[in-house]
Amino acid sequence: MTRILFYLEDYSHDIWREALLKIDPTVEFRSYPDWGSPDDGPAYAFVWEPKPRLLAQYHNIKAIFSLGAGVDHLTRDPALPKDVPIIRMGDDGLKEGMAEFVTMSVLMHHRGMPALLAKQRQKDWGRFFARAARDVRVGILGFGALGQVSAATLLPFGYDVAAWSRTEKLPRNGISLYHGTGSLDAFLARTDILVGLLPSTSETSGLMNSDRLARLPRGASIINAGRGSLVVLDDLVELLHSGHLGAASLDVFPEEPLPMDHALWGLDNVIITPHIAAITRPDTAAEYVLRNIKKLERGETAENQLDMKRGY
Amino acid sequence: MTRILFYLEDYSHDIWREALLKIDPTVEFRSYPDWGSPDDGPAYAFVWEPKPRLLAQYHNIKAIFSLGAGVDHLTRDPALPKDVPIIRMGDDGLKEGMAEFVTMSVLMHHRGMPALLAKQRQKDWGRFFARAARDVRVGILGFGALGQVSAATLLPFGYDVAAWSRTEKLPRNGISLYHGTGSLDAFLARTDILVGLLPSTSETSGLMNSDRLARLPRGASIINAGRGSLVVLDDLVELLHSGHLGAASLDVFPEEPLPMDHALWGLDNVIITPHIAAITRPDTAAEYVLRNIKKLERGETAENQLDMKRGY
Repeated sequence: MTRILFYLEDYSHDIWREALLKIDPTVEFRSYPDWGSPDDGPAYAFVWEPKPRLLAQYHNIKAIFSLGAGVDHLTRDPALPKDVPIIRMGDDGLKEGMAEFVTMSVLMHHRGMPALLAKQRQKDWGRFFARAARDVRVGILGFGALGQVSAATLLPFGYDVAAWSRTEKLPRNGISLYHGTGSLDAFLARTDILVGLLPSTSETSGLMNSDRLARLPRGASIINAGRGSLVVLDDLVELLHSGHLGAASLDVFPEEPLPMDHALWGLDNVIITPHIAAITRPDTAAEYVLRNIKKLERGETAENQLDMKRGY
Repeated sequence: MTRILFYLEDYSHDIWREALLKIDPTVEFRSYPDWGSPDDGPAYAFVWEPKPRLLAQYHNIKAIFSLGAGVDHLTRDPALPKDVPIIRMGDDGLKEGMAEFVTMSVLMHHRGMPALLAKQRQKDWGRFFARAARDVRVGILGFGALGQVSAATLLPFGYDVAAWSRTEKLPRNGISLYHGTGSLDAFLARTDILVGLLPSTSETSGLMNSDRLARLPRGASIINAGRGSLVVLDDLVELLHSGHLGAASLDVFPEEPLPMDHALWGLDNVIITPHIAAITRPDTAAEYVLRNIKKLERGETAENQLDMKRGY
């Protein structure tokens, strides 16, 4: 019997209960606030944005699974238990969703869709002839699991793809790799379409500020599908206004929902989506969580277990 | 020396002259109306929407190359020479552009972008959670060169892809093939996102009328990137209004530009682009034309030579 303590606000928990029980009918699914007593025995937390200090009250929690790829909703809890493994979501649904969203967004910017959509609203037939994909330099900022699957679906189109990561990664066919702070400016200078996929850490927060956005070539596009903290929105708005940046697709924001009075809503060359790039899917995520609980119970390390020193 | 008689309204011819001369500096590029006399000796026409009866006046034309994949702009000329080979454009730029546009549009419909873009204009953060790609049935209507390259870039996402063609095609991994009028309804009934890539012929004109559009499952999307004559627009508007169809992306229209007073402009769930899905690129197209002129001069058949009986 595996006891799972589930936390997710605003959405029904039924679909998650069903997905877990379909794979293992002996699972004891406890939906918050019905988590029972900490003395009930071993349990696994499976949570999204739990109330701060809540997890610390349950000393029976053996591991904490995040419902999404991000774990900043956990690490910002000042009372987060220090000796309990934290596991990021790494299910296939999440990877597939991100590869879809990134490829769609790169194609949209390459093919001039932000401008074409604005023209449609004016009933303007003005045509835009796109460059060949091989002449379009895509730069993926953050080259973990999600960056890698996104690169894989971009390559068949012939894009000139590069990726930047904090630490060195193994070489991959057809992708120019950059790593470390020292190479970031060179990476940005060769990038026509930037794809932000970095986790939220103290090092990435505000990384794409006015100085760094200005390193992109004139007319460049920026897609942010990782974490809202990456981009300084006021700086982005300024560079979109000045024309240095051509367009943007933003799926994540420092404050969500994006406040109604934010200047971004008024920009014609910005596509705003409500944090839907990559969604954890109950069926594949349930399989992932139960598979990793078994690993932990065998004394192994879970997939995508958090490295507290790096913060993701 | 190869003499090329070039015809294209509204756009500069310089880029085409340069592209051809870059490959073969001995080319004699004659820009309409400076086509010289029919008695100047053998020539090849390279044209888009030439004035009716113009080509018939030049008995020195050995072959007619279309600037685009479509040849209906030629076959509707009542005086079109009957004994001169007609060659559709088949350059890589055209294929790449179509694969990009189709994949982008399928991803946009799968991921609910028409509705999300409409919500953005209302500053509405309403979220949409897409199905897994494997649960989305894409149907490619027309499985020639452009349909095949489009299928190839869709498959890596895991879509359930089928294709319909008039005549039987060789089987391909991962694609369910349908052919012939008798199987069209079954093909439509299993299609969530329809991609129109048929040429314009007497058989395809008005093919997607009210009856056939209604065969698609409720909520289906339609993308038309082939020829405007395929879809009966009044019927499409009616089915979008009734909610039977969920959304559409239209790049081609019976009359272009789409008239300012057309009902389509006012629909929130329709994405209108100005016939830019696949654009012939001067560099790759020039190489294609000169390569095929050599083939014809060796007495071979050109690539994509028109079959007048089929009309494309």
